[in-house]
Amino acid sequence: MKRSQLFIKTRKDAPADETAKNAQLLIRAGFVHKEMAGVYAYSPLGLKVLDNIKKVVREEMNSVGGQEVMMTVLQPKELFEKTDRWDDKKVDNWFKTKLANGTELGMGLTHEEPIVDMLSDYINSYKDLPLLVYQIQSKFRNELRAQAGLLRGREFVMKDMYSFARNQDEHKAIYENVAEAYTRVYDRLGIGDITYRTYADGGIFTPEFSDEYQMLSEIGEDTIYVDEQRNIAINKEVINDDRLDERGVDKSNLREAKAIEVGNIFPLESKYTDSLGVFYTDNEGKQQKIIAGCYGMGVSRLMGAIAEHFADDKGLVWPKSIAPAQVYLIRLGDAQDVVKVADDLYAQLTAKGIEVLYDDRDDRPGEKFADADLMGIPHRVVVSAKTLEQSKVELKNRTELESSMVSVQDLLAKLA
Amino acid sequence: MKRSQLFIKTRKDAPADETAKNAQLLIRAGFVHKEMAGVYAYSPLGLKVLDNIKKVVREEMNSVGGQEVMMTVLQPKELFEKTDRWDDKKVDNWFKTKLANGTELGMGLTHEEPIVDMLSDYINSYKDLPLLVYQIQSKFRNELRAQAGLLRGREFVMKDMYSFARNQDEHKAIYENVAEAYTRVYDRLGIGDITYRTYADGGIFTPEFSDEYQMLSEIGEDTIYVDEQRNIAINKEVINDDRLDERGVDKSNLREAKAIEVGNIFPLESKYTDSLGVFYTDNEGKQQKIIAGCYGMGVSRLMGAIAEHFADDKGLVWPKSIAPAQVYLIRLGDAQDVVKVADDLYAQLTAKGIEVLYDDRDDRPGEKFADADLMGIPHRVVVSAKTLEQSKVELKNRTELESSMVSVQDLLAKLA
Repeated sequence: MKRSQLFIKTRKDAPADETAKNAQLLIRAGFVHKEMAGVYAYSPLGLKVLDNIKKVVREEMNSVGGQEVMMTVLQPKELFEKTDRWDDKKVDNWFKTKLANGTELGMGLTHEEPIVDMLSDYINSYKDLPLLVYQIQSKFRNELRAQAGLLRGREFVMKDMYSFARNQDEHKAIYENVAEAYTRVYDRLGIGDITYRTYADGGIFTPEFSDEYQMLSEIGEDTIYVDEQRNIAINKEVINDDRLDERGVDKSNLREAKAIEVGNIFPLESKYTDSLGVFYTDNEGKQQKIIAGCYGMGVSRLMGAIAEHFADDKGLVWPKSIAPAQVYLIRLGDAQDVVKVADDLYAQLTAKGIEVLYDDRDDRPGEKFADADLMGIPHRVVVSAKTLEQSKVELKNRTELESSMVSVQDLLAKLA
Repeated sequence: MKRSQLFIKTRKDAPADETAKNAQLLIRAGFVHKEMAGVYAYSPLGLKVLDNIKKVVREEMNSVGGQEVMMTVLQPKELFEKTDRWDDKKVDNWFKTKLANGTELGMGLTHEEPIVDMLSDYINSYKDLPLLVYQIQSKFRNELRAQAGLLRGREFVMKDMYSFARNQDEHKAIYENVAEAYTRVYDRLGIGDITYRTYADGGIFTPEFSDEYQMLSEIGEDTIYVDEQRNIAINKEVINDDRLDERGVDKSNLREAKAIEVGNIFPLESKYTDSLGVFYTDNEGKQQKIIAGCYGMGVSRLMGAIAEHFADDKGLVWPKSIAPAQVYLIRLGDAQDVVKVADDLYAQLTAKGIEVLYDDRDDRPGEKFADADLMGIPHRVVVSAKTLEQSKVELKNRTELESSMVSVQDLLAKLA
């Protein structure tokens, strides 16, 4: 990607109405555009980060046997009446709309009912189970306030997965498999060391316990108690002595911390399958209940949380696994040899599959350096008359203060 | 993908309320699930086809310099009031919804206003133009009737692109570039020979002429006149002697045909940029109008049109470029050597990057053959005790009647 062709520009200040640091930075760096509170459009750079996160999530969900589908945004009222989740008094953050003939519709907030309804076409026998189905798509939540940028959107990108098992043992095995896949996702996104599997309440979905994945952050809305030794945490909302005993947690090892919920997994028991009349026939011909689980992960929320967490006073700092490019290549000046070396380097890196944001504009050096920092690209490479005097280019990592002079050969080897 | 693990099943009959042949076939083959009229969810197989079409579209839009973004579904009323497109009397097929505080919102039907609004942050000078921005996402249209399956959805996947140029000449050059990219998309999707660039009316967007891409089909809602020699067509709605003269078309060469609109490109002049107050400054410091174009292509509509067009009495027939797998591998019986050869073949093909739908179920042969045909996978390969007697496997293409016996080596070479 050449900056001269990319339509976005960085800006010194975020819009006055944007109070969340993640959105301020993402807007200033040209990654997102604010449509309204809690609703953001993604520029080519922002979309790239989002797609990189999706790719990691998709690979890990596939690795545990998840089958990807795409459910719809428009939702029929009848399905949600069967599970008593249509009424605004029951679920107060639905967006709703209407067909031309007046028929009320919901806008995708969660997909238990439509997924179970779809699967009812395919599940009959014990041979059809277990199964694990997921999707990654835009969801809608009619939040009263949406002041947290990408952390709490009215329109947001989410991965939601649903498991269906023949009994509790099978359900628990799947649940733990998915829990491990969640851990791998956070590791790959660079937040594994600050993200804890956290015991929590089941919320509106289930009377049972559930697990949240909480990423430590000063701006988090949740308070958790972390047991670093055991690498687990407990949400403040559910903590009490009995529960600590149940989990074998020693109070004195716990540390209170603020955190952002970056995922959750719930046992659903047979609530939705029962309500929608979906059962399976066991190998003795008897009708049996289906035990389900649901596994959410906010993809755009992760983008916001990561943006805010790693940022420094110069701007964004993307982990390599999701950065929109690996190299921010700066050409200083337009001397013929400088242009040639920079153009060649861009071509060579691109040919090696290394994504480069090539600042080939005629802007002032200071602006180019500031953009490289603000956009948070992992490696900055500078080609100038001065570096070419030494037959080298300058390499600096976004998280380091010192730069070094390296030959093009060494650079290619280093980044490969 | 192993059939034993894939949750979908084929069915003999489509739901009684489904009257469109494309949707009937796609439902029977397990590619889509009907949520309500005009609203379909995609199974792993359906999503695969959709993603394959998206990939082709994306590559060709990128090849002409398109920059991919992701705009939002939720739309602020104010933007559309500025262009006089909010009122239901002006645009009667909006889905609308409300924030919790009562503020009315639109649901993404078209994105001229939000795109122009976003770009207003970035366009100042003549140096910032031209540019070409696109997205591929779910759109919503509140159709009174939606009986055509994927051909006319209330929720559908669309690619919409927008160009912004400094003057008419620049606009026309971009417009023709995109027109050529459209032709390449249809060629790659296997419908190039039946899809015509068609002169049409500008519709509600512009008083100017526009171009549609019409795919010949008996079930098409449009009537066009095709000039096969010149490889163009004219929509019946706009045909008259003056226009034929303008275009240098000889009436006697025209053939009337039914067709499905699978794309359209419109000159927008400066309607939206003017209404939203977005201009650029030329190299003499003067404020100038921006000349825009808009380029739509229905991704899910293409899937429906292709499904319906190529189908025969046995089911779907996917072009190789978008088929959910290249090979439908059937294992007949569970003799040890049959299982081993089939399993090995599955592993070898997969390792070569050839996607295989492996029917490893214990179903009757007749059901497996019927599924292979109904699902429309390009190549069918059978491994059985009988084929192994000859140390071979059986290969049949979906569009051919005759099968042939080939060695595994030859098969791998053929499909590579």
